[in-house]
Amino acid sequence: MHARVTVTLKPGVLDPQGQAIVGSLASLGFSGIAGVRQGKVFDVALDKTDRAQAEAAVRDMCEKLLANTVIENYAIELRT
Amino acid sequence: MHARVTVTLKPGVLDPQGQAIVGSLASLGFSGIAGVRQGKVFDVALDKTDRAQAEAAVRDMCEKLLANTVIENYAIELRT
Repeated sequence: MHARVTVTLKPGVLDPQGQAIVGSLASLGFSGIAGVRQGKVFDVALDKTDRAQAEAAVRDMCEKLLANTVIENYAIELRT
Repeated sequence: MHARVTVTLKPGVLDPQGQAIVGSLASLGFSGIAGVRQGKVFDVALDKTDRAQAEAAVRDMCEKLLANTVIENYAIELRT
């Protein structure tokens, strides 16, 4: 079973990297960009075949390692 | 209009950061992890309201800045 974990900054948390990308896009000639927020994605391949067990394990991984839950949100998508 | 760009390493490209995460998860007691691949996500807020125009602009951003198309794939999801 595969899990895709998407970790994004919580609203209100400053994102200097995203702001730098806005600046770079503007200097490349792109206009009309209201903002960019950068996040991370983790594709986790699991041996587990039970969906509920896999989701619980991945949620635990997010809480313990993959996301900093003080400033980041995470979303989990499971695929067989 | 909002676009979510997901940039992932192409299959076969080494991902040392993903391997480090597998090691960290193992040392935290997680078992049965076949692999982890790390990628990036960009949430781009655009002033454009036309879907086709927005998609073309975001595709251009990916080719020019957001992704290194030699080693990375990208996927674009548009939301109003």
